[in-house]
Amino acid sequence: MIIEKIKLYEDRDDVILTAYIIEEKGELHGIAPRPAVLICPGGGYLNCSDREAEPIALKFAAMGYHAFVLRYSVYGEGAKEIYRNPDVTLPVREECLYPTQILETGQAMLIIREHAAQWEVDTDRIAVCGFSAGAHNAALYSAVWHTDLLSGHFKTKKEFFRPAAVILCYMVSDYVDFEKLMENMAISKTDKAMMKACFIALTGEENPDLQKREAISPDRLVTKYMPPAYIWATSADNVAPVQHSLRMAEALAAQKVPFELHIFEEGQHGLSAADQTSAVVKEHMNTDAARWVELADAWLKKRFALTLLSCVTEEDYLKQIGVL
Amino acid sequence: MIIEKIKLYEDRDDVILTAYIIEEKGELHGIAPRPAVLICPGGGYLNCSDREAEPIALKFAAMGYHAFVLRYSVYGEGAKEIYRNPDVTLPVREECLYPTQILETGQAMLIIREHAAQWEVDTDRIAVCGFSAGAHNAALYSAVWHTDLLSGHFKTKKEFFRPAAVILCYMVSDYVDFEKLMENMAISKTDKAMMKACFIALTGEENPDLQKREAISPDRLVTKYMPPAYIWATSADNVAPVQHSLRMAEALAAQKVPFELHIFEEGQHGLSAADQTSAVVKEHMNTDAARWVELADAWLKKRFALTLLSCVTEEDYLKQIGVL
Repeated sequence: MIIEKIKLYEDRDDVILTAYIIEEKGELHGIAPRPAVLICPGGGYLNCSDREAEPIALKFAAMGYHAFVLRYSVYGEGAKEIYRNPDVTLPVREECLYPTQILETGQAMLIIREHAAQWEVDTDRIAVCGFSAGAHNAALYSAVWHTDLLSGHFKTKKEFFRPAAVILCYMVSDYVDFEKLMENMAISKTDKAMMKACFIALTGEENPDLQKREAISPDRLVTKYMPPAYIWATSADNVAPVQHSLRMAEALAAQKVPFELHIFEEGQHGLSAADQTSAVVKEHMNTDAARWVELADAWLKKRFALTLLSCVTEEDYLKQIGVL
Repeated sequence: MIIEKIKLYEDRDDVILTAYIIEEKGELHGIAPRPAVLICPGGGYLNCSDREAEPIALKFAAMGYHAFVLRYSVYGEGAKEIYRNPDVTLPVREECLYPTQILETGQAMLIIREHAAQWEVDTDRIAVCGFSAGAHNAALYSAVWHTDLLSGHFKTKKEFFRPAAVILCYMVSDYVDFEKLMENMAISKTDKAMMKACFIALTGEENPDLQKREAISPDRLVTKYMPPAYIWATSADNVAPVQHSLRMAEALAAQKVPFELHIFEEGQHGLSAADQTSAVVKEHMNTDAARWVELADAWLKKRFALTLLSCVTEEDYLKQIGVL
């Protein structure tokens, strides 16, 4: 495996694309370019969680796919103030306002394409995968990849931004009814402060108007250009209520976009792989929810399975791998 | 993840230990040292197959374990002559004669221990895993780790060589009845030449005497010091007949060593992960046999599962990860 870190901006080292490239050695060399998964960790647009970064990359690598983790623009260290002082109103930071993360996701796609020959990436089969705010970003990206937003900004073909599939983990999909969906939740002062900070990080406002909210609600932006989607969440999620995932599924169904949806009954927000690869505490592990990975493996195989040739004889095989 | 290659001999670059270290970042830092799996690829002691190297390391990494691939001493390029001229008798090579590979496995364990603090490895929980000839080596190592062979050679404590578990994939276990077990197989001229070459590589002789054969037959060397074992193979294996695995299980049962045994009906020798992570051709994939990985995952958890603490409140958690 080759692990490479690529900065998206020359003068900044906080926005990084980390590539986990499956390096085909020996007999495995040159068999086929592999599909890839581009992962957006969560963190409420305040940070990028390491728990939803490498452990997830390694899950996809173990399925046979190249993996990329995009640490996109987030509010950063300044957000921690809300834990010390929940009443603070954080100052706006231009660097992390929408549509920055969408553009960075597009840039990551272009970087992958640029290296496709070297890394042996099948560029027709790149999936975008996100967790929590990262899932919001992945869904938004997958809903607008075909518009002028990306092709206009990068001055290149729309096709280059196309995600072949999207994987959405305990997502946020709806900013129009965001507060309404939290109404029945037991929300602490810190939770409220966190939500406020997330709004300021992404939109610059505690209470954006309707038009702005709609523009960042992927459940209201689905068209026929949306790639097939795999969605999973837990019904017990008290940070991103499960209705976000249900509404996304509704929107996909309305546009006849193929999708898979798995809602596990139990499990808190932020499970990541829900096993010991991404857990800091026991509550991060859940045997039922952890099955999302094997279900995603099966689902991805529908479109991402490698096509391998048959070998009729051992002699054929030895010739194929260069021994004879 | 940190990938590091370490030479076992200063003046040779063919015997390499490749470390795949799970690097705990951010919230994941300092949670617990992780168990590890030391992998010995197969290749009949003629080479070390890349198909049974990194793809397997990534499977164990995706379970949450550090992984190490040991490319041990093998006959090398000269063995390819048997494909061009099946009647050739290969010259003996001292560098790959038994017990070289056992000693190299012991050296790998010592290297892992040496770096345990830096890499955060739980040295009480290192498993040895092998494929085909690599499984023969892993089984032999696991049968003799406690003898003077290793402690005498390296002049250090026997305890340092102890494997906490052993995973044996389509193994060879019995050199006493090796030819007898092949009697019913359809063996081509190339197969015969391969077997001859394997004998010469490991023992220096086409037909070692009984005493030599017994010394390298792990199914005849099992004692109570043998670690718990996980064994899998296919009943259709026509290179290492399944009886090798059955005899190994018998030997473990006789010594009351705990073990798990999974024999899948179909599948040729050398499936490795039996999926697209390690396949060159279609015949390398088998959905049934591929389940050995998830079964090994469950089995390893009996002894290798990380113990994590609970967090009663979110405040506790934020303190634990250093935000508060």
